[in-house]
Amino acid sequence: MAEGKKVKFSYDKLNMLCMDAFQKFGFNEQKARIITDVLLTADLYGIQSHGMQRMVRYYKGIQKGTMKVDAEPEVIFETPISAVVDGHNGMGQLNGHFAMDLAIKKAKEVGVGIVTVRNSNHYGIAGYYAKMAAKENMLGFSCTNSEAIMVPTYASKAMIGSNPQAWCVPADPYDFLFDASTTVVTRGKLEMYNKLGKKLPDGWALDKDGQPTNNAGEVLSNIVGHVGGGIMPLGGNTEELGSHKGYGNGMVAEIFSSILSQGLTSDLVMKDGKAGTCHGFMAINLASFGEPEAIKKHFSEYLQALRDAPKAAGQERIYTHGEKEMAAIKDRKENGIPVIDKTMTEVYDLCQYLDLDFTKYFGDYVPPKADNMFTGNY
Amino acid sequence: MAEGKKVKFSYDKLNMLCMDAFQKFGFNEQKARIITDVLLTADLYGIQSHGMQRMVRYYKGIQKGTMKVDAEPEVIFETPISAVVDGHNGMGQLNGHFAMDLAIKKAKEVGVGIVTVRNSNHYGIAGYYAKMAAKENMLGFSCTNSEAIMVPTYASKAMIGSNPQAWCVPADPYDFLFDASTTVVTRGKLEMYNKLGKKLPDGWALDKDGQPTNNAGEVLSNIVGHVGGGIMPLGGNTEELGSHKGYGNGMVAEIFSSILSQGLTSDLVMKDGKAGTCHGFMAINLASFGEPEAIKKHFSEYLQALRDAPKAAGQERIYTHGEKEMAAIKDRKENGIPVIDKTMTEVYDLCQYLDLDFTKYFGDYVPPKADNMFTGNY
Repeated sequence: MAEGKKVKFSYDKLNMLCMDAFQKFGFNEQKARIITDVLLTADLYGIQSHGMQRMVRYYKGIQKGTMKVDAEPEVIFETPISAVVDGHNGMGQLNGHFAMDLAIKKAKEVGVGIVTVRNSNHYGIAGYYAKMAAKENMLGFSCTNSEAIMVPTYASKAMIGSNPQAWCVPADPYDFLFDASTTVVTRGKLEMYNKLGKKLPDGWALDKDGQPTNNAGEVLSNIVGHVGGGIMPLGGNTEELGSHKGYGNGMVAEIFSSILSQGLTSDLVMKDGKAGTCHGFMAINLASFGEPEAIKKHFSEYLQALRDAPKAAGQERIYTHGEKEMAAIKDRKENGIPVIDKTMTEVYDLCQYLDLDFTKYFGDYVPPKADNMFTGNY
Repeated sequence: MAEGKKVKFSYDKLNMLCMDAFQKFGFNEQKARIITDVLLTADLYGIQSHGMQRMVRYYKGIQKGTMKVDAEPEVIFETPISAVVDGHNGMGQLNGHFAMDLAIKKAKEVGVGIVTVRNSNHYGIAGYYAKMAAKENMLGFSCTNSEAIMVPTYASKAMIGSNPQAWCVPADPYDFLFDASTTVVTRGKLEMYNKLGKKLPDGWALDKDGQPTNNAGEVLSNIVGHVGGGIMPLGGNTEELGSHKGYGNGMVAEIFSSILSQGLTSDLVMKDGKAGTCHGFMAINLASFGEPEAIKKHFSEYLQALRDAPKAAGQERIYTHGEKEMAAIKDRKENGIPVIDKTMTEVYDLCQYLDLDFTKYFGDYVPPKADNMFTGNY
């Protein structure tokens, strides 16, 4: 589905812009590189909602004080296999990278590392961190809570975040990478339908009384106004299609993030001028279970059997998780990264604020004129 | 929904029957006690499909040779935080209990234990093992693969099992216990609809061409005949409602069971006269993250907030996971455990085979006459 007019720019150009901008925000080069890599990996994977378009939103977070530029993640509890990190309201990407890096170090030494983080911010795509572990021949797991958006089964109020879980395991020809919100869809999908004035499909969202609705605009404004309603768990809003299962999977993400860290649960995240987002990370060394290459080969054969299975009538292809991301990377490296032109207007404006030369990155490209710059609900 | 005529018997009576029967099968008292406890816990939880009605099916498995009475689980690879167990085609309950017990021991010593099992059999409810860890103030995780029944997104053939995941975390007034198949429903639900001659709800099952169907009988016979089709992942059969997410969660259970253990993947389980079922277990000591009582209190408060959240119009109650099981235990201890009378016919027949006195357990209760004893697809 279309998401508005898009323009394409090379990875290198966007990388240069992000590096310059995040350093202007006050981050040193190393930190700017981590934040940029998380964002542009999302763009390369085709997950635009979590890519460089977030930059302006982060800028606003820093301006408002919900994101602290000078925060350093601090290990406040630790054992050889585990750690609790206080993110001190720093950038989610920096806290996430620090925590998964620590989990991987532990997994190298003792076979597994489990790290939980509190007082953080939006950390981008959960899959980025899970993938960090897979690059080291480990099973990687990452999850986060977020501002409440999921309405538990039989409730009328959002109490749980979109609470994605990402799992990544090394395989050939591409890693298994399963990264998904535990809601049926993300808030970004609703925003897209709203922009296009389209009715939501059945089974996605609830109104303020907890009743199914197809009105994207109403749901979004109810969420912002904390009036009630929100998005259904994976499995809908009744037990017939398994609502309690999506709700349960959302709780698992909550447990590894806010419960083990004793941080803010989703119902309290992003209130009172504080984010307080929590994350969870786990790295499991494949060598804890045998020869990593043998495990990888065994898994790769099963993944191939799945892709080779008989197709449903009318379908030409069965995907395994991570395959679409690999195809997206290939496309974006060859043809550039698509960016919504509205985002480019924000970027143009941001360059003015930060005293960066827009033409250095985008030449003579002229974005559409801003209508409500820095006033929308980013 | 009704499942046929039921009779109720006390826990003590059924416990006595199971203990006697499993010892007649050839298990020693200690092993009979473990198997019985897993089965009757399912009955107490209200999950009849995984309760004592399985006993006759297990008897047939032993007769056919797919379940080995004299098998002993063997640790074939081990580190301080992990182990791989070969179940040597023994009872799933015995392998499962052994493996989770080992995971808990490791978690007591080093904070976490992850154990994977291959060459096992149906192990009953996944939640039983997760709960074992919670009793020790640990987060417990358990999963299993099974005979393929889940059709991956866009496929027409079942390639993944019902692949339940169970997560249990200590809390007051009752533990969080989330135990669910990663399919939208289990095969047992289809069998129930078939027995009652009812049409399946939309969004549950696929015919042999991978197209949605409401015909339970056809789906079940296609599964038995390996003709194609099966049950949809949680999220249905298209990406609109998140089919790829249920499929991904099924894969996570597969990874912890058959992949890490290098055992049979679901597509190969229960073929060629061998079960080869695989399981995964993890115990995470809460003390690895701080004061267990503080973590438990923090979690309990969130669970209470969920239960106290505003209800959807027409709903009186929001459940947290594990609450229904606690209510079921209370009911069954007060009023007895319901058993379908058809199961009692099987039990009567089994008692004849094993030379056990049916009246010792059930007094003058007379079950309905058998029509197809020991001929059905158990």
